[in-house]
Amino acid sequence: MNISDLRTAHPDHWQKAAALRVLAMDAVQAANSGHPGMPMGMADVATVLFEKHLKFDASAPDWADRDRFILSAGHGSMLLYGLLYLTGYPEMTIDEIRNFRQLGSKTAGHPEYGHAPGIETTTGPLGQGLATAVGFAMAEQSMAARFGRKVVDHHTYVIAGDGCLMEGISQEAIGLAGKQKLGKLIVMWDDNGISIDGEVSLSDITDQLKRFRASGWSVFACDGHDPQAIDEAITAAKKTNSPSLIACKTHIGYGAPSKQDTNKAHGSPLGDEEIAKVREAYGWSHPPFEIPADIKSAWEEIGKRGTATRADWEAAKAALSPRRADLFDRVIKGELPSKLSSAVRKFKREMVEKLPKVATRKSSEMALEVLNSVLPETIGGSADLTGSNNTLTADLGTFDAKNRRGRYVYYGIREHGMSAAMNGMALHGGVLPYGGTFLVFTDYARGAIRLSALMGTRVVYVMTHDSIGLGEDGPTHQPVEHLAALRAIPNLNVFRPADTIETMEAWEIAAKSPTTPSVIALSRQGLPAVRTTNSNQNLVERGGYILAEAEGDRKAVLIASGSEIAIAMDARAALQEKGIGTRVVSLPCWELFAAQDENYRRKVLPRGAVRVGIEAAVNFGWERWLIGERGRAEKAAFVGMDGFGASGPIDDVYAHFGITAENVAAKVEALL
Amino acid sequence: MNISDLRTAHPDHWQKAAALRVLAMDAVQAANSGHPGMPMGMADVATVLFEKHLKFDASAPDWADRDRFILSAGHGSMLLYGLLYLTGYPEMTIDEIRNFRQLGSKTAGHPEYGHAPGIETTTGPLGQGLATAVGFAMAEQSMAARFGRKVVDHHTYVIAGDGCLMEGISQEAIGLAGKQKLGKLIVMWDDNGISIDGEVSLSDITDQLKRFRASGWSVFACDGHDPQAIDEAITAAKKTNSPSLIACKTHIGYGAPSKQDTNKAHGSPLGDEEIAKVREAYGWSHPPFEIPADIKSAWEEIGKRGTATRADWEAAKAALSPRRADLFDRVIKGELPSKLSSAVRKFKREMVEKLPKVATRKSSEMALEVLNSVLPETIGGSADLTGSNNTLTADLGTFDAKNRRGRYVYYGIREHGMSAAMNGMALHGGVLPYGGTFLVFTDYARGAIRLSALMGTRVVYVMTHDSIGLGEDGPTHQPVEHLAALRAIPNLNVFRPADTIETMEAWEIAAKSPTTPSVIALSRQGLPAVRTTNSNQNLVERGGYILAEAEGDRKAVLIASGSEIAIAMDARAALQEKGIGTRVVSLPCWELFAAQDENYRRKVLPRGAVRVGIEAAVNFGWERWLIGERGRAEKAAFVGMDGFGASGPIDDVYAHFGITAENVAAKVEALL
Repeated sequence: MNISDLRTAHPDHWQKAAALRVLAMDAVQAANSGHPGMPMGMADVATVLFEKHLKFDASAPDWADRDRFILSAGHGSMLLYGLLYLTGYPEMTIDEIRNFRQLGSKTAGHPEYGHAPGIETTTGPLGQGLATAVGFAMAEQSMAARFGRKVVDHHTYVIAGDGCLMEGISQEAIGLAGKQKLGKLIVMWDDNGISIDGEVSLSDITDQLKRFRASGWSVFACDGHDPQAIDEAITAAKKTNSPSLIACKTHIGYGAPSKQDTNKAHGSPLGDEEIAKVREAYGWSHPPFEIPADIKSAWEEIGKRGTATRADWEAAKAALSPRRADLFDRVIKGELPSKLSSAVRKFKREMVEKLPKVATRKSSEMALEVLNSVLPETIGGSADLTGSNNTLTADLGTFDAKNRRGRYVYYGIREHGMSAAMNGMALHGGVLPYGGTFLVFTDYARGAIRLSALMGTRVVYVMTHDSIGLGEDGPTHQPVEHLAALRAIPNLNVFRPADTIETMEAWEIAAKSPTTPSVIALSRQGLPAVRTTNSNQNLVERGGYILAEAEGDRKAVLIASGSEIAIAMDARAALQEKGIGTRVVSLPCWELFAAQDENYRRKVLPRGAVRVGIEAAVNFGWERWLIGERGRAEKAAFVGMDGFGASGPIDDVYAHFGITAENVAAKVEALL
Repeated sequence: MNISDLRTAHPDHWQKAAALRVLAMDAVQAANSGHPGMPMGMADVATVLFEKHLKFDASAPDWADRDRFILSAGHGSMLLYGLLYLTGYPEMTIDEIRNFRQLGSKTAGHPEYGHAPGIETTTGPLGQGLATAVGFAMAEQSMAARFGRKVVDHHTYVIAGDGCLMEGISQEAIGLAGKQKLGKLIVMWDDNGISIDGEVSLSDITDQLKRFRASGWSVFACDGHDPQAIDEAITAAKKTNSPSLIACKTHIGYGAPSKQDTNKAHGSPLGDEEIAKVREAYGWSHPPFEIPADIKSAWEEIGKRGTATRADWEAAKAALSPRRADLFDRVIKGELPSKLSSAVRKFKREMVEKLPKVATRKSSEMALEVLNSVLPETIGGSADLTGSNNTLTADLGTFDAKNRRGRYVYYGIREHGMSAAMNGMALHGGVLPYGGTFLVFTDYARGAIRLSALMGTRVVYVMTHDSIGLGEDGPTHQPVEHLAALRAIPNLNVFRPADTIETMEAWEIAAKSPTTPSVIALSRQGLPAVRTTNSNQNLVERGGYILAEAEGDRKAVLIASGSEIAIAMDARAALQEKGIGTRVVSLPCWELFAAQDENYRRKVLPRGAVRVGIEAAVNFGWERWLIGERGRAEKAAFVGMDGFGASGPIDDVYAHFGITAENVAAKVEALL
């Protein structure tokens, strides 16, 4: 639909949509940076969605049963900011819009979760919003099954662009959503035929409707500038039992005389001259950042549309039994029951009795048996490695269209999609997601893991087969650089526990970290119990601690994590036998150890003893612990990997790479 | 088709396929580790392919015009090893088969490129083989256009499993291949309906035929145990002008009485009892690793099928003009013309005259103008960021179905697929691929980047927008941990050049590294020229070097890379003005610097001066350069990031995070 037809046929709609368009165009121009084309193209769709369909109350952005609106095409952030400003969300003032893309503003270049209410998730890396939305929709279904449709019954709407659909993660999201029959997930595709390099056909000829249909989606198409057609498409999509794609045929940079329908409208300011012409085409004479009162007030009415529904919802929630209401509030807030701590302590006491010699992936399963029974909010899963990741515990049940009370998701071979979905679940609230794959395949999921860290979602990555210790599968499956690569990510706790008790402690910290995601790296191979005396205190919480003190004069400190703790302990025994006092420090979490005060770190890693670091991984980053505090050096060495692994039985592989107690002891003796 | 029908109808085929099956089953059992189900299921398809279609000569595995056979479902490695052994490839002896999955054998758990002739690429991480195959097929088309169909005319065949098709990277590969109309790419999907967790339908309901068709593929289906049906499907696929998918309906663990069609056949030995029953069902009475002479000899005849064709090919190649023949040989060997070095030196001389103040992404474009004109084998591209990555130079032409002589690929928004395709091109030989995206999106491509490093492919990753210096796009687009995460990968050169000359030197090293892939991290923002005097020597080759010597007593050493070199130089000027002798060390490539001898490193980073490291990235790993050699400490500090970035204009962002010359100078003064 062209502008004059649209203005004539739908004058009220036109004014509201034009306000969105102009705000985006002007904010990008003022910032001299940004993406005007998408908001100008999708303003009609967004206006119809907010005016006719989205269940929300701008005055209560945290309303648990609101519809979620996810801008997967995050570069079009001004569309979202404009909607939040116009409908009257708190914090999204016109000054924030004026300060678009300025340091310290809430209006970052791409939507940043936590910057302002109404930003449901961080987007920008393409495809993430779409894949995260799948998690939102899954969490909604899970919560609805647990608490009833009267208190949980909302849609998840997504605006996605061609980039989102071309990224591989989109297929994982589409496949997962299709299998899960997420009928309340509705994706509006900004079908403008333009990508940064030019026409989409330069790189893709995919028939997206056919592609989505192949995975069980309902598909619709509409003129993305015709309010009635948009309304009909959304209405139809809401009626299906499968997830829906609506192809919204739009013009990027709608109304920009020389840039519409070209990549020039995508990622740069239009320029003053073009903007003047757009104003003319729009019949919009108001200066930048000034929205006429009647238009603003019409938008604010939209912002209040949900008030009555929310009141009904409050009543429905008040009608829940006190026990259910308390549980609802607890899980929505992400709080944990007090019985968790006592259950963990009980488990640890038992383990000190039993001293199980098991792989830490098995330890993780044992920990999960405890956690999953105490925490009904956990939703576990695996990217098709359930039996290897040990992520499934008894009585969870399979989460699928037939059983929304199930708490275990068969994610399929979709590490990236799983991780993004877990972000969505955590952001939705009410659930605590964890999911497994092999540690090496964090490479496949890294785009989403980074967003977990950036947003601070409580997601637990259960990453088994954490070293060359997996043996015969060989270098493609043996992580060597992954611990370092994950430790480099800010705000991500990377745990590598040594035995069952450390594993439980890592899990406890992960569950109790509301704003930090966790990776728990776990062994395939069996490991001896090294925590042989009970401690009610969570020792992993300090990141590193003295596991075994030197007997006699302390001459050496061995620092290790996970499966190499057993090697360190064996080396210590051999060294002590020779009269060399040797301390073993367990370092299961660098991030937490680094966060301790210097006194504690110096107590654990004292001066005046030689140090040997031991980890079946590359030494990248290990210098941090092998030098002293304040840059004062110790004699030190590292026993680990300096390249990729090899295929072979575990003992052969460890021996081949020299990661043995004998080698550790020899290094200590050579340093002394 | 069931076993008895198959044995009756196709007795010769049966014996050959049974040999493959039994070898796989027995080798996995002997190793007590591995995946028997896939080879047992796909043996019929592989037998027909090798017997009737694959153009190869086992005695000449490097024949440049051979068909490529890619086992994307790499866990079924015994299928490949069995084929190589039976057809008589050099090096693949029965002893290697006996030593399946043993340390030092050529028969690793997953196929490892370089272990033995006939292993065209490393597979195992699912989807990689399929996506890599797209690059093989693109390279074939490019080479055919350049050298003619008489010397380049071959197919790329892939065996892919459900896992390959569920991974997101598969969609990127399918989309790219469909757009590129790679008619000689034929994917045989092991459609057995089983994944590790159970039935595929547990996690996916995708109609794969429809999905592939949506991206322009031709699709076929056949009974994967019926030799005639398989033959017909492959024959039909070869006739199309689009890439082809053949859904081969198979039984995983074909013939295993209690495990066929279940996930129990996938990833563990069948066990002696089950194996005995399989032998019975197969009518196979021979002991493990003994193939009757007639069957072996029938397979060896297959291995010789291509001899005559290869002789014809040798003749055709001999008929090329000497100039073209020399060029063909040079590019297939991956050798570079001698004029490259002189062109680089000439460029550097010019730059010392011009001292351009440009972003290093622009410097990279300038370097590429030189390289692309001297090296006709380069094939560039970008994941839809051409104008931002500056990867397109004049006269390259667009590589697509209409113009196979084009040397620029519009990869679309497919970082992972692009990277895997570049691996395939490099492995195919004859081309030197490079491709661009933003550095932050190496996260999306990491699965393939890791394989570049593991295989040692000559691939150049042109990664622009390499820090918070990109400004307003904000933390989702600002890499902070990516340099560290990439430096942690073995056998990957990570360059971060400071100006145009360093950028050209990095490019020269990348082109001249036959077995090491390169990442070149490049700035969005303009940077001053810091290499102001000419050096014919490539200074980046040593990884780090003295860029500016201290005047007077050397009290401080500033160590920086890329865009922070300018800050270091400013800090040096301020410090020198105060009489503090300050050296600036440029450290554009850690890996190359670490590979220098200790004397050189100590010369560049001497004792007795305070050190400040400067990089707009997290400090993870920086301790390596901030302590002295042999663990002897220096007073040191780091100026950089300790968390995620922020959206804002570049100067504001740098100031906000304290990455300024003033701050560097202050750190030095505080340390002194």
